[in-house]
Amino acid sequence: MIEVIALDGDDTLWHSEQLFVDTQEAFRELVAPFVDLAPDALDAHLLEVERRNMPTFGYGVKAFTLSLLETAIEVTKGEIPAAHLQSVLDLGKLLIDHPVTLLDGVPEAVDALTDRYRVMIITKGDLLHQESKVARSGLVELMWQVDIVSEKDEETYGRILERAGIDPATFAMVGNSVRSDVLPVLALGGHAVQIPYHVTWEHEHADHEEGAFPVLDSIRDLPACIEEMQAALEPTDD
Amino acid sequence: MIEVIALDGDDTLWHSEQLFVDTQEAFRELVAPFVDLAPDALDAHLLEVERRNMPTFGYGVKAFTLSLLETAIEVTKGEIPAAHLQSVLDLGKLLIDHPVTLLDGVPEAVDALTDRYRVMIITKGDLLHQESKVARSGLVELMWQVDIVSEKDEETYGRILERAGIDPATFAMVGNSVRSDVLPVLALGGHAVQIPYHVTWEHEHADHEEGAFPVLDSIRDLPACIEEMQAALEPTDD
Repeated sequence: MIEVIALDGDDTLWHSEQLFVDTQEAFRELVAPFVDLAPDALDAHLLEVERRNMPTFGYGVKAFTLSLLETAIEVTKGEIPAAHLQSVLDLGKLLIDHPVTLLDGVPEAVDALTDRYRVMIITKGDLLHQESKVARSGLVELMWQVDIVSEKDEETYGRILERAGIDPATFAMVGNSVRSDVLPVLALGGHAVQIPYHVTWEHEHADHEEGAFPVLDSIRDLPACIEEMQAALEPTDD
Repeated sequence: MIEVIALDGDDTLWHSEQLFVDTQEAFRELVAPFVDLAPDALDAHLLEVERRNMPTFGYGVKAFTLSLLETAIEVTKGEIPAAHLQSVLDLGKLLIDHPVTLLDGVPEAVDALTDRYRVMIITKGDLLHQESKVARSGLVELMWQVDIVSEKDEETYGRILERAGIDPATFAMVGNSVRSDVLPVLALGGHAVQIPYHVTWEHEHADHEEGAFPVLDSIRDLPACIEEMQAALEPTDD
C-alpha cells in the first residue's frame, strides 16, 4: 500500500520553466545588438554551455545565470560590453526573486492527500532558492518533510528513502519530469505519476514506454489517481 | 552525555577559505589594469557586494563568482572587457574543481571519534559543491549522516536535530566559526567546540564571551577534548 507521497516542486507545485523561457527571451534581446545569430542557434549554444557546465555548476538559477553570462561572452566573441553582462546577471536575480505561483489545483490536491498520506516535497536546484520557494509556496506546514537535492537519480531517491525509513513499495513520487521524477523511482520498486508541464527543459527529456505509469492532465486528478493505484494494489480474493 | 558529534566541513575538515583568499588575489590582478583601486578598497567593495547579494544568492562558490563578476563590472564602471569577465568566471570554476585537501590530523581524529560516537557532517554552501567535497574527502563512509544547509542558525540546527531525533543535550558541534558552528548550538542547549582556522571570512566574525566553550589548536586534540567534556557531564557523588 502507498503510505508516502512525494511531490516535485518546480513545474509540479509551482511554475518555473516558463520563467526560464521568459528569461531566455529577455537574454536574446540583450545579446541581439552584438551578434547576428538566429534565436534557435542562440538557444542551442546556451544549452550546450549549460550541459558543459552541469558537472561543475549543477542545477538551479545561479548555474543558469553563470551559463547565460558565458554564452553571451562566447557568442559575441567578447564584444558584449560589461554593462550588458550586468543586465544578464540582473536577469538571474529577477528569476530568483520572482514570486512563487502555484499551479491550478495545488492547494486542494495537497490538502486532500495530507488527510490520508504523509506528503513530502523532493525538489532539485539551488539550495537557498528552493528553500525560499518552498517557504513562499505556503505549503510547508502541510509537509511531513522537505528534501532539496542536487540530482534526482536512483542513488538520491534510495538515500532519502533509507534515511526516512520508507519502504520503496509504499512510496509514490509525483512530478512533471519522466527523467527525474518517474524512471528512477520505478527502478527502485516505487510508484510514480507524471503530470507534464506545458513546457519541458530540453535536458529533462527521456524516452520511455507508453502506459508504464499514470500520466495526468492536472494535479486536480492526483487524489483520485492515488486511490485507483491503491485499489489496484489491494490483495484480491480471486 | 554526548552521543552525536557533528563536524563542520569548510576550514574544519578540509581547507577552503585560503582558496577563496588566493582566488581574490587572482581576481585583483585581473581587475587591476582597468581601475586604480587599492587592494583593501577592492576587497571592501567585494565584501559589500557579497553582503548585498547574500539574501538572493546565499553562500557558496557560485554566489561568490557572481559577486566577483558584479564587483569587477562596478569598480571598473563597465570598462572591463568581456574576455576578462570570462577569466573571472573561470576562477570560480577552478575553485569548484579544486582538489579537497584535509586539514592535518583529520582522518585520525574522525577515526577515533567514530569508535565511540555517531559522527556527522553539517556544512553550508552550494549543494552540489559541498556534496562533491564530502565525496572527495574520503570521509563519507565513516559518517552517520551528512547535512548540507543554506544557513547555520538556531532554526536550521533545531530542524536537523528534530528530524534525526537527537536531544540537543547529547549533541556537540565542532567547527571553525563561532557565528555558525558554536553560538547557535549553545543557544539550543547543545555543546560546541571551536577549532579556529588560520584565516576567517569577514562575514563569519562574531563577538562572544571568553571561556564559554573549548577552543582547540588542532582537530588532533578533539577526541581528548570530547572525553573531558563527557567527564564534566558525568553525575558526581559529591
